[in-house]
Amino acid sequence: MSMKYPLFISILVVCSNFCFAQLHESDKHDSLIIRRFYDAVLTNGRCYQWLDYLSNQIGGRLSGSEQAAKAVQWSKTVMDTLQLDKVYLQEVMVPHWVRGKQEEGKIISKKLGNAEVHICALGNSVGTGKKGITASVIEVKGLQELNALGKEKVQGKIVFYNRPMEPRNINTFVSYSQAVDQRAFGPTEAAKYGAVGVVVRSVSLAHDEHPHTGSLRYDTLFKKLPAVAISTNDADKLSTMLQKDPDLKFYFKTDCQMLGEVLSHNVIGEIRGSMYPDEVIVVGGHLDAWDNGDGAHDDGAGCVHAMEALRLFKVLGIRPKRTIRAVLFMNEENGLRGGLKYAEIASKTPSEKHIAAIESDAGGFTPRGFGFTCENKKILDKLLKYVKLFEPYGLYEFKEGGGGADIGPLKNHFKDIVMIGYIPDSQRYFDYHHTEIDIFSNVNRRELELGAGSIASLLYLLSEYGVE
Amino acid sequence: MSMKYPLFISILVVCSNFCFAQLHESDKHDSLIIRRFYDAVLTNGRCYQWLDYLSNQIGGRLSGSEQAAKAVQWSKTVMDTLQLDKVYLQEVMVPHWVRGKQEEGKIISKKLGNAEVHICALGNSVGTGKKGITASVIEVKGLQELNALGKEKVQGKIVFYNRPMEPRNINTFVSYSQAVDQRAFGPTEAAKYGAVGVVVRSVSLAHDEHPHTGSLRYDTLFKKLPAVAISTNDADKLSTMLQKDPDLKFYFKTDCQMLGEVLSHNVIGEIRGSMYPDEVIVVGGHLDAWDNGDGAHDDGAGCVHAMEALRLFKVLGIRPKRTIRAVLFMNEENGLRGGLKYAEIASKTPSEKHIAAIESDAGGFTPRGFGFTCENKKILDKLLKYVKLFEPYGLYEFKEGGGGADIGPLKNHFKDIVMIGYIPDSQRYFDYHHTEIDIFSNVNRRELELGAGSIASLLYLLSEYGVE
Repeated sequence: MSMKYPLFISILVVCSNFCFAQLHESDKHDSLIIRRFYDAVLTNGRCYQWLDYLSNQIGGRLSGSEQAAKAVQWSKTVMDTLQLDKVYLQEVMVPHWVRGKQEEGKIISKKLGNAEVHICALGNSVGTGKKGITASVIEVKGLQELNALGKEKVQGKIVFYNRPMEPRNINTFVSYSQAVDQRAFGPTEAAKYGAVGVVVRSVSLAHDEHPHTGSLRYDTLFKKLPAVAISTNDADKLSTMLQKDPDLKFYFKTDCQMLGEVLSHNVIGEIRGSMYPDEVIVVGGHLDAWDNGDGAHDDGAGCVHAMEALRLFKVLGIRPKRTIRAVLFMNEENGLRGGLKYAEIASKTPSEKHIAAIESDAGGFTPRGFGFTCENKKILDKLLKYVKLFEPYGLYEFKEGGGGADIGPLKNHFKDIVMIGYIPDSQRYFDYHHTEIDIFSNVNRRELELGAGSIASLLYLLSEYGVE
Repeated sequence: MSMKYPLFISILVVCSNFCFAQLHESDKHDSLIIRRFYDAVLTNGRCYQWLDYLSNQIGGRLSGSEQAAKAVQWSKTVMDTLQLDKVYLQEVMVPHWVRGKQEEGKIISKKLGNAEVHICALGNSVGTGKKGITASVIEVKGLQELNALGKEKVQGKIVFYNRPMEPRNINTFVSYSQAVDQRAFGPTEAAKYGAVGVVVRSVSLAHDEHPHTGSLRYDTLFKKLPAVAISTNDADKLSTMLQKDPDLKFYFKTDCQMLGEVLSHNVIGEIRGSMYPDEVIVVGGHLDAWDNGDGAHDDGAGCVHAMEALRLFKVLGIRPKRTIRAVLFMNEENGLRGGLKYAEIASKTPSEKHIAAIESDAGGFTPRGFGFTCENKKILDKLLKYVKLFEPYGLYEFKEGGGGADIGPLKNHFKDIVMIGYIPDSQRYFDYHHTEIDIFSNVNRRELELGAGSIASLLYLLSEYGVE
């Protein structure tokens, strides 16, 4: 478009000036505060520069790695500059899985010719050994189909899970949740039937060459099979070749391994509430990130959202009535130890009551809303009505149901806690998720900043009015 | 995030299944049709592949260029495959401006040292001649400030317009409309006061090295000054250096020029209405695009949106009651000749009545809604209520006020026509707009497809129920 939207633009401007007219008096005050959060982050935000550093200077930071330790120190140092009331590390033991250096995958077919493919080890997987694994392939669309095939058709083979993410869901997280069982539980299910290895179609809606890692969960009653993800394009290729040559073999080699546990940390900073300091509102993301990319969206974005939210309170001189605590959790990706440890310690601190927790772990994209898990319907209604204050910023989706992996364990200890998930636009997330292209240049500054402004604004309302 | 959103996800799924319960019977039928449009585009869309071809095989296609002619032929050929009722070209004479091969910019300061900067000629600008222009610089924040300075302070100098886009507006098009006067009218205003050249800060919210072109409008009563855009980072640099050395000089050289007019075409395809064939609904984008990038977002996206919408009607076997006509307009960027010609011919075709027109010219990003310009408040209300049918797809912004440059001239001939602008998410648009990075790889497949599904769905409602 060039420069000719006069009517369109003038009406938009009028609408944005007059939207206050629809609000009540107390809402007017709140809407002005919220405007200040967004203005501050859009004009002088820090989150984008922080994410640049975390992504480009530290990079992928899987639990137990040197980079994870650096990220802990760096984020504590940043929070130390924010003049918060308290900044500290919380010790937590984490698993230390390493990818190793060898990742090769190949389709071997006398009939069709060989083809190299893009694979990567799944997180927590055992390696193949030096010779790699070469075997026939049995393709299935999921765990149920594998089950129906039984031992006879699976034994000695590589199981190839190839059910794609469903493109028709508008919310891509729904499609993710429907497909990810193949990656998480596929290896152990295959072991039950005597398979020798597992190849999983990357859990992505993109058609490309990037394999997507992510953790698997072994059931220790069964053999730990080496497991890899294959790019979506190569999954299609393997499937097509299997139809033409069912006797083809697949070869892959990895030297990943699980090492011993390592001491790591959650990084915590807080602003103490002026009226109800014992009521705590957590805002967090996870500091660990897969090693193949830089963890810019997953979940560098969530970490800088949380830190930025606290910074905004400080620079605007807004003292929250309740305590707001940013927690950068360690080890969401392959163990959740940070989330479990934080909840355990919180439950043993009788002087504090956790009333709400927000997690940002869905990327640094344009904000669309928040999801709330709240048992009390009256409180839920009150929270959902806050949407009116956010509509001027493009957030319309205040919904029942929400939370996050790291804050999840708090629910076991604080039964009235409100669990909140930040909802950004989901269309691009699974293009980058757990790949080598989850990098800073795929994050847009304004989209990231609007997320921080949205989270800060919701924290303000929660700290101002509580959840009773 | 890893794989632990069980509650969040399950509630989302429940909500999406039960959302029908809130709808009336006729809405239920419509909602099922709309679901089919989205399902079809998300599973078997063609728009993304089309845009790949248009961007990567044809590329930038400014009016009068060889690429523009190729784009005309290609898009007609594509529409010919869709089994529409009519596909044809509409002749239109267009200006033929060429950038030339030389674009150089430099800050010259004895005190601070010289610095090369990133510039590009503004569309329609005259060139500098072989020696380029070297002169002192007067920086202003806009036309008003220039006016206040007067001839004495401007004469013989290069005027440097440096008012940034306002970052605090959530809708970036508002900020664009507030800043673009510098580019459009700045050169003629500077000529009035005896300036010798014009440098305009790129109209962008990004901080980077990409200069943004775009058309200027000369008033023929005044001298045509050579004018260039400078990247936002270099605009900051120039401003900073000017503060330290007000006597520095700026040098730039361009060899762009306006050639004679050339014959070109609007490309048109239509599905004839089954009940009211004489009532026409236009859906369009513009086929021309700036030469420095590939015009993927501006406005390749709009063109493939329109073509995809027609294709969806055909593949789903949905016959519209009213005629739906896709128009790929030529010359939006630097003349609007295609839009003017289309409206002129439409006004001379008494057998047809144009009742509505949708333009997609804001990029291929996630859909947020539509803006409507409609004099009749009752009809407007009816249209705004359609939002309920779109909310399951993430579109919440059905607003008064909307249209597009190319469809604008129709309003002069059809006073009751409803003008509609497609509203995608606006955060990234002005990072790419009119630059070398408006390329295919900056378009996300799903975001583009959701746009086409949204436009097809609205076309369906308009063709089914009309605007009376």
